[in-house]
Amino acid sequence: MTRILTGDRPTGPLHLGHYFGTLHNRVRLQNEGAEVVLVIADYQVITDRDLADDLLGHTERLVLDYLAAGIDPARTTVFTHSAVPALNQLLLPFLSLVSVAELGRNPTVKDEIAHSRQSAVSGLMYTYPAHQAADILFCKPDLVPVGQDQAPHLEVTRTIARRFNDRYGHVFPEPEILLSDTPLLLGTDGTKMSKSRGNAIPLGATPDETAAVIRRATTDPDRRITYEPDTRPHVANLLRLAALCQDRDPYEIATEIGDGGAAALKRHVTDAVNTFLAPMRARRAEYARDLSYVREVLREGNKRANAIAEATLDEVRAAMGGFR
Amino acid sequence: MTRILTGDRPTGPLHLGHYFGTLHNRVRLQNEGAEVVLVIADYQVITDRDLADDLLGHTERLVLDYLAAGIDPARTTVFTHSAVPALNQLLLPFLSLVSVAELGRNPTVKDEIAHSRQSAVSGLMYTYPAHQAADILFCKPDLVPVGQDQAPHLEVTRTIARRFNDRYGHVFPEPEILLSDTPLLLGTDGTKMSKSRGNAIPLGATPDETAAVIRRATTDPDRRITYEPDTRPHVANLLRLAALCQDRDPYEIATEIGDGGAAALKRHVTDAVNTFLAPMRARRAEYARDLSYVREVLREGNKRANAIAEATLDEVRAAMGGFR
Repeated sequence: MTRILTGDRPTGPLHLGHYFGTLHNRVRLQNEGAEVVLVIADYQVITDRDLADDLLGHTERLVLDYLAAGIDPARTTVFTHSAVPALNQLLLPFLSLVSVAELGRNPTVKDEIAHSRQSAVSGLMYTYPAHQAADILFCKPDLVPVGQDQAPHLEVTRTIARRFNDRYGHVFPEPEILLSDTPLLLGTDGTKMSKSRGNAIPLGATPDETAAVIRRATTDPDRRITYEPDTRPHVANLLRLAALCQDRDPYEIATEIGDGGAAALKRHVTDAVNTFLAPMRARRAEYARDLSYVREVLREGNKRANAIAEATLDEVRAAMGGFR
Repeated sequence: MTRILTGDRPTGPLHLGHYFGTLHNRVRLQNEGAEVVLVIADYQVITDRDLADDLLGHTERLVLDYLAAGIDPARTTVFTHSAVPALNQLLLPFLSLVSVAELGRNPTVKDEIAHSRQSAVSGLMYTYPAHQAADILFCKPDLVPVGQDQAPHLEVTRTIARRFNDRYGHVFPEPEILLSDTPLLLGTDGTKMSKSRGNAIPLGATPDETAAVIRRATTDPDRRITYEPDTRPHVANLLRLAALCQDRDPYEIATEIGDGGAAALKRHVTDAVNTFLAPMRARRAEYARDLSYVREVLREGNKRANAIAEATLDEVRAAMGGFR
């Protein structure tokens, strides 16, 4: 069985960008029989933020979003990495296999450092690629689907796996990087979709909240709706959103709307999104009514992740020799 | 009860320099009723060495030396830090509390880097002060006895404890640094005592091996033995060694030997050392006959250390909020 490691930071609710970018793909892989392992990277919150603000709430809402989207905890392991000490211990042998220079050269670390709110770069931020290697390699996955921006980290992970195996004998796979073919879905204002910009539709939004976000969407004065991504990016983006939700062709939707203008376009998109999200919202509301199930999912996932990590750590100790 | 954290790297057998420098003090503190926690820092071996050569053997012989010297595992916890995942997990929150600049400024790290056999500095070496903070703070000790060279690390430990408490609420003590009043005991060639220089007397050496090391000791041509550390350092060092073993005054021993010359001095020192080490050697031989007791000591110590570390990690998670 193919094992796939993927995950999220618990920094806010998932939105449609996340859904079409990665989440629907995870659900598809799960349903096709792959073993999906989903890490909720809660320590990342202390990497680039000074305080963990309502971390528990964010974590639980993330699990709600997973369940709503179709993640089945009977088949997919959902866990928080702070709950798995044996995973975190892997950081020590892994840090011995990368140089400070290599950590500093990592482009994502450079970028994170540039965007950090912290005045000085913390040791945790600097060593981030090694933590990610632990998050990934603890479960020896075959595949790691990542966005383009995460690819450099994955190279460090593969380097660490290779060096460990070269030095101590084969323990880790060099997981394949599956660059996700993310459809270009921008926020309703044409910029990157982000909760803080108010241009994203969270999976857990109500139909009214969804309508309000789409009503505020940027369009253009041309009443005739056409799908021309290069010259009419805002209109094209709305058409793409509807097309993804309806599994249709954006050109076809544009033709259907014809001369209806932005108002008709927005009505169409709102209907498409609300129809698409309706079953997810129903499931989410169901699970949100009593969070004890969400907590049980995390407890069970953490238990499984600990068992996997302890088995891997035992192999690591044996391979390195002399550790117990 | 006062809790004291101390420890060693498992890099070779302990010798008389270790004994008079730290070990006898640990035994004394234990016998006076302090709770001593002894960390065998086995991951340090991968910090500054490329391969862990016979690490298991080194670890077991270190425990033999402890037992021989009077460490009582019923009262003192002896453990290897690689066996305590919850301790190692503390590295992550701790790394978030120190900057890369602070890690790089640490004089001991600078020194370690300068002496490292590794061409590039590993991430593990660079983050060493944060690991040491985890090794220490996991058991919330009141006191940490250290040599002068280790004092800068302890300052990082105290800084991390203080910052954690300031940010998340009081969890950790700021352990007092007890600068050990190490008697200046040099090797038999007048340089720093070290196994690799062949100028040290291991606790586990036989009487004949001991005599051979002392026979090779550097002295001077003056047949009259006097205790003059400034002008006759080699003779003075041998006198100090005998004095420590016999709990006598080195001047008095010198007077006793009088005109006997180097030969009489060396006979005296050999007798003093062998008499002093005899009961330790007997105990060591007893325990060495069947290593299952040594292994049981480590198993039990690791179990206790895990219980302590898990309780501390639970407090840390609760204080930070949102971690489970």
